[in-house]
Amino acid sequence: MSATSELHPFDDAIALTPAGEHRFTGRTTESYWNMIGPYGGITAATLLQAALQHPQRLGDPIALTVNFAGPIAEGPFTIEARPARTNRSTQHWSLELVQNGEVATTASAVFAVRRDTWGCGEAVFPDVPPADAIAPLPTGFAPVRWFKSYEMRPVRGAKPAAEPGTEHPDSLTQFWLRDHPARTPDYASIAAWCDSFYPRIFLKRAGFVPAGTVSLTTYFHADAATLAALGDRHALGSARAQVFRQGFFDQSAQLWSPDGELLASSHQIVYYKQ
Amino acid sequence: MSATSELHPFDDAIALTPAGEHRFTGRTTESYWNMIGPYGGITAATLLQAALQHPQRLGDPIALTVNFAGPIAEGPFTIEARPARTNRSTQHWSLELVQNGEVATTASAVFAVRRDTWGCGEAVFPDVPPADAIAPLPTGFAPVRWFKSYEMRPVRGAKPAAEPGTEHPDSLTQFWLRDHPARTPDYASIAAWCDSFYPRIFLKRAGFVPAGTVSLTTYFHADAATLAALGDRHALGSARAQVFRQGFFDQSAQLWSPDGELLASSHQIVYYKQ
Repeated sequence: MSATSELHPFDDAIALTPAGEHRFTGRTTESYWNMIGPYGGITAATLLQAALQHPQRLGDPIALTVNFAGPIAEGPFTIEARPARTNRSTQHWSLELVQNGEVATTASAVFAVRRDTWGCGEAVFPDVPPADAIAPLPTGFAPVRWFKSYEMRPVRGAKPAAEPGTEHPDSLTQFWLRDHPARTPDYASIAAWCDSFYPRIFLKRAGFVPAGTVSLTTYFHADAATLAALGDRHALGSARAQVFRQGFFDQSAQLWSPDGELLASSHQIVYYKQ
Repeated sequence: MSATSELHPFDDAIALTPAGEHRFTGRTTESYWNMIGPYGGITAATLLQAALQHPQRLGDPIALTVNFAGPIAEGPFTIEARPARTNRSTQHWSLELVQNGEVATTASAVFAVRRDTWGCGEAVFPDVPPADAIAPLPTGFAPVRWFKSYEMRPVRGAKPAAEPGTEHPDSLTQFWLRDHPARTPDYASIAAWCDSFYPRIFLKRAGFVPAGTVSLTTYFHADAATLAALGDRHALGSARAQVFRQGFFDQSAQLWSPDGELLASSHQIVYYKQ
């Protein structure tokens, strides 16, 4: 982000205008356009943003689930963000994105006030080279616009290495990631980053098939200060599937700070056709 | 289940009565009572059941997210199950459990018509002894009533092995599981089974601390015929945490058939105090 007052494309994309009680209006932007609709990560971030900027918000995000129920067309949409229940230190949100009178996306979020407790990182930070040892992927690497809004430095699994028609031994992709232009992460951008892995079936089957996320759940393990301290450094993303069966596969992903702290874990179930 | 017409305790626990459009009434039962409310797994199963028995249901469950927003007291409750969007082969549900005028639980579910496609099980079935090589835990092993509604045969991590006050090297629990009395699994019971692991922090910290699931997401990887074919055989459950930090830890779980097929994967974020 430069020192000018110009909005970062990410902040522009998730910008919402209050439109009555529990209601906001937003619109798609070109910077995060996917094949035939907005990038799922930006939709997730925008839904979370509605709760983040709601006047009744309590605490910070702990969990976010986004269900991609139908297509979103270019243009305006409405988000309803309703605090379904507010407790002393936790808050549960029910969210819906509506466009042209139809529900396009449903979501839920849990917010909470984080407290200092005993803690332990059990999962082990992967043994990977640092971000500055790896060249970024060219911005034209993937034929979708949102890809240009990220800077990715691939550790492995950037693209199918097997011959088309053969089966890749695993579906593991790892890359260093930040926004492009660089932007200090916050909960909204972490929500988006967790969807930045291309569908695992592209890697597994060494080719492109119709595929799209159906439901995406993200757990936020870092507090706001930890995210802010990341600055313009990269996070390490890692994603892998467990099973591909009858038109659906899963994906589990982790986002790590370069210091080896697990920032978020994220899971999704993805439709595929083939 | 005997040949009499008596309902299995699980079917009794998730029984719902239609109460108007998109609305059902149910009630807690003793068989699945936890410390101060119903076992979270039975609440998840009951919410899913509302969509399963809704007259507008399309296909079978793919994903279920349940947010435990507040306590559920002994007695009756109402579930609202609204098909937020129905497409040609997928359907998105918004669900709420209300008791005494307050939202106690919110949930969403994705249903779909499964189709034969290319498939691949990438995750590897754990190397464990068969169920019949392991003695079941005594029904009084855990001081909660719902535990007696399951038959568990522990492979590892059944209880904390470390000295209280010390830290267990990992949070991995594996057991063979079926309903008690035995009952052929279906989507509702799979939803419940996925919450049958005691809080990972009990194992990690070798002792009991206040803890409760905040949000639970389950992906169903098996079709109805695969579940029915399981009969009264056990499923292998496996669960582990990645990080414990600032009052919340995660858990990822798998449920496997004895033939090595991944039936479901499930993730949750859990509150803890200490």
